[in-house]
Amino acid sequence: MTQAMRAHHGRDESSYPPMLPDAVIFAHSTEEVAAAVKLCSAHDVPVIAYGSGTSLEGHVLALHGGVTIDLSQMNHMVAVHNEDLTATVQAGVTRKQLNEDIRDTGLFFPIDPGANASLGGMAATRASGTNAVRYGTMRENVLALTVVTADGRIIKTGTRAKKSSAGYDLTRLFVGSEGTLGIITEVTVKLYPLPEAISAAVCSFPGTGEAVSAVIQTIQMGIPVARVEFLDENGVKAINAYDKMALPEKPLLLFEFHGTPASVAEQAQLVQAITAEHGASDFEWASRPEERSRLWAARHNAYFALLQMRPGSRAISTDCCVPISRLAECILATKADCEAQGLVYAIIGHVGDGNFHVQMLVDPDDPADIARAEKVNSDMVTRAIGMDGTCTGEHGVGMHKMAFLVEEHGEGAIDTMRALKHALDPKNIMNPGKIVRW
Amino acid sequence: MTQAMRAHHGRDESSYPPMLPDAVIFAHSTEEVAAAVKLCSAHDVPVIAYGSGTSLEGHVLALHGGVTIDLSQMNHMVAVHNEDLTATVQAGVTRKQLNEDIRDTGLFFPIDPGANASLGGMAATRASGTNAVRYGTMRENVLALTVVTADGRIIKTGTRAKKSSAGYDLTRLFVGSEGTLGIITEVTVKLYPLPEAISAAVCSFPGTGEAVSAVIQTIQMGIPVARVEFLDENGVKAINAYDKMALPEKPLLLFEFHGTPASVAEQAQLVQAITAEHGASDFEWASRPEERSRLWAARHNAYFALLQMRPGSRAISTDCCVPISRLAECILATKADCEAQGLVYAIIGHVGDGNFHVQMLVDPDDPADIARAEKVNSDMVTRAIGMDGTCTGEHGVGMHKMAFLVEEHGEGAIDTMRALKHALDPKNIMNPGKIVRW
Repeated sequence: MTQAMRAHHGRDESSYPPMLPDAVIFAHSTEEVAAAVKLCSAHDVPVIAYGSGTSLEGHVLALHGGVTIDLSQMNHMVAVHNEDLTATVQAGVTRKQLNEDIRDTGLFFPIDPGANASLGGMAATRASGTNAVRYGTMRENVLALTVVTADGRIIKTGTRAKKSSAGYDLTRLFVGSEGTLGIITEVTVKLYPLPEAISAAVCSFPGTGEAVSAVIQTIQMGIPVARVEFLDENGVKAINAYDKMALPEKPLLLFEFHGTPASVAEQAQLVQAITAEHGASDFEWASRPEERSRLWAARHNAYFALLQMRPGSRAISTDCCVPISRLAECILATKADCEAQGLVYAIIGHVGDGNFHVQMLVDPDDPADIARAEKVNSDMVTRAIGMDGTCTGEHGVGMHKMAFLVEEHGEGAIDTMRALKHALDPKNIMNPGKIVRW
Repeated sequence: MTQAMRAHHGRDESSYPPMLPDAVIFAHSTEEVAAAVKLCSAHDVPVIAYGSGTSLEGHVLALHGGVTIDLSQMNHMVAVHNEDLTATVQAGVTRKQLNEDIRDTGLFFPIDPGANASLGGMAATRASGTNAVRYGTMRENVLALTVVTADGRIIKTGTRAKKSSAGYDLTRLFVGSEGTLGIITEVTVKLYPLPEAISAAVCSFPGTGEAVSAVIQTIQMGIPVARVEFLDENGVKAINAYDKMALPEKPLLLFEFHGTPASVAEQAQLVQAITAEHGASDFEWASRPEERSRLWAARHNAYFALLQMRPGSRAISTDCCVPISRLAECILATKADCEAQGLVYAIIGHVGDGNFHVQMLVDPDDPADIARAEKVNSDMVTRAIGMDGTCTGEHGVGMHKMAFLVEEHGEGAIDTMRALKHALDPKNIMNPGKIVRW
């Protein structure tokens, strides 16, 4: 075990300093994971599951040392069932690998959190992303898991039946449990037919309120948009500079429509009319794949584009989700805080779900700068919770949001979560120090 | 407390003999439920939540006596948020009441298990029904719950945010827990825009295999059917007789399409072409509301229609769900068993989800008759589990399916469920004797 290997597994994409495990194991099968967990359990040693290391909230940091089990080599497709629209994969398979593997089936897996995360990690954090407005999150798209429990037993949490009323929903309990209740080693997910036609459209708004109102009306009319992403003017400026685009530097919505050619055309027409009613301008189509790819590449590059706005900086990414009727208010108040703190920032939102992120660029060596960003984050989360929203729409709790979790749920619900943790991990060896305090 | 009141609450729609509680309480608020549970906890008395008494698997029977808390008078709407497409209701509100209350908003709540069940009961059994193929089940449509825990505390399991990665999924843990972990007193659900256009179509097939293949192809093409129901020839005969209809007495599919007028027309055309490829005949449209209502009324009456086929009998209803690629095989083998046992029966399926029910008419006073039906049920469930399916798609476990639950999940997963039960209900007072053995 080299120091480099331990160091690689002792950090993620969060702004925490590295916390190294004592050892790293590369697992190749569920049985190997079970054997490792049994050993760790016998010796009261912490166990941390590691997928692709793309966590933003400190999920994989070895706060109390112990053994990190790297699942990235468990990257085999177990089974694809075309007629049932399901795939079962080992936990280390990434979403891009899955989609490449099933390309010839006419099916795809829609959940896209941006990073090329592993399916195990995505299940463990209840990930989602740009397609969630139409296709749901990992919560809705995982049918069953194979899990190694804290005492090293192997269980299956469900079947390939599309629905079930068979007892406690173990699948949904382990989805989002961030390795604190057991280690996910296989994931069975739903697949979807590749849409016959796809088109995209982009338009600009005089303000954030108008953009959000257009989205609310779109959803109230039942138009099944596949994606609808919001960028504030700072985000637009960043991608204009990075991707050499010439989008109006105003709040922007980027839509994608999936369906038959006729239904895609109809959806887009309806949305164009709605956005016009809310003051949108510069409505632009992109039905040719290359135009569409260019727009979505720009959206996906927003994070890197923004980093160029302050060379040498590091991005801190926030994450909250509110009922959509409160979204414009939440974004605008958070924007005002960013301005008051003098931050370099942009706001990007999965706006159909009421979920948005503030990307703030900070000098990693300036504690005051980081403190300003954390203040904006903290106020934003408290605001979101006050609006009957959540402290994290898709990034998870990890170490960073444990206090917010209490604020959101209250002591009674947190005690219930703690009782679950104590019941399933009585020795507190599964990713200790994450989600709930012991 | 009259004997009649106890008797009324000591039975459900299952074929179990009545099991009476010692007392019945009518609750009017979450606080009253909490006070009652605290008292019961202090005296180690079982507590059973009761909604509308429509359970089919013995969920509400007072196996160990105790206090039944009737929630039917907790029937107030708490809040409707049109822009967010959410409603919060007390647990005793029924699905019909909810839909009547929100009629003017242009929204509706799609989950339709047939019976006019309470939302609390529907959440507790993870109910679904005919619309699930498009809109999902209670699993996908409950956003948050207010729950009274086994020690009489009041917790909220979630927020109105559409998605969240905030800790263990308490909402999904209580959905489907059948009153064994706590009592659901308020439910926040998703609402949907009333479709601009609805149309229905019916067609007949030479055999079950052809009908199921047509459904598989429909789903693989991504056609967003709102409902697709299967009736075998016995079911068709029964509704022909009961509703004075003249449908061909062959396996039948009943479709419903939701969307814009253009998209509904397109969906129906595509489905007509697909069903024709699979040998369908007598394809009939019903786009006028009265024709559509007549067809769907016939489907909803199927249970009563069938009862007329054997006067004096009682129906035993089975419930299983398999991956759709195995559905035809599972239905046909089960049909053969029914024939071999000489039963009067019909098969009805939420076929888009791989879920079907056999309704068997038995003489309630003839143990041999009941034993024949239970044998068919037992073999069917074992078959479904062998196909990577589930012992219950939507009716729940109750008392009736506890052994099947073990067969489906295996000892390890059942031990995990038992650990959850012990953690959240350490005195075993919450609906004891249901789901998992103590």
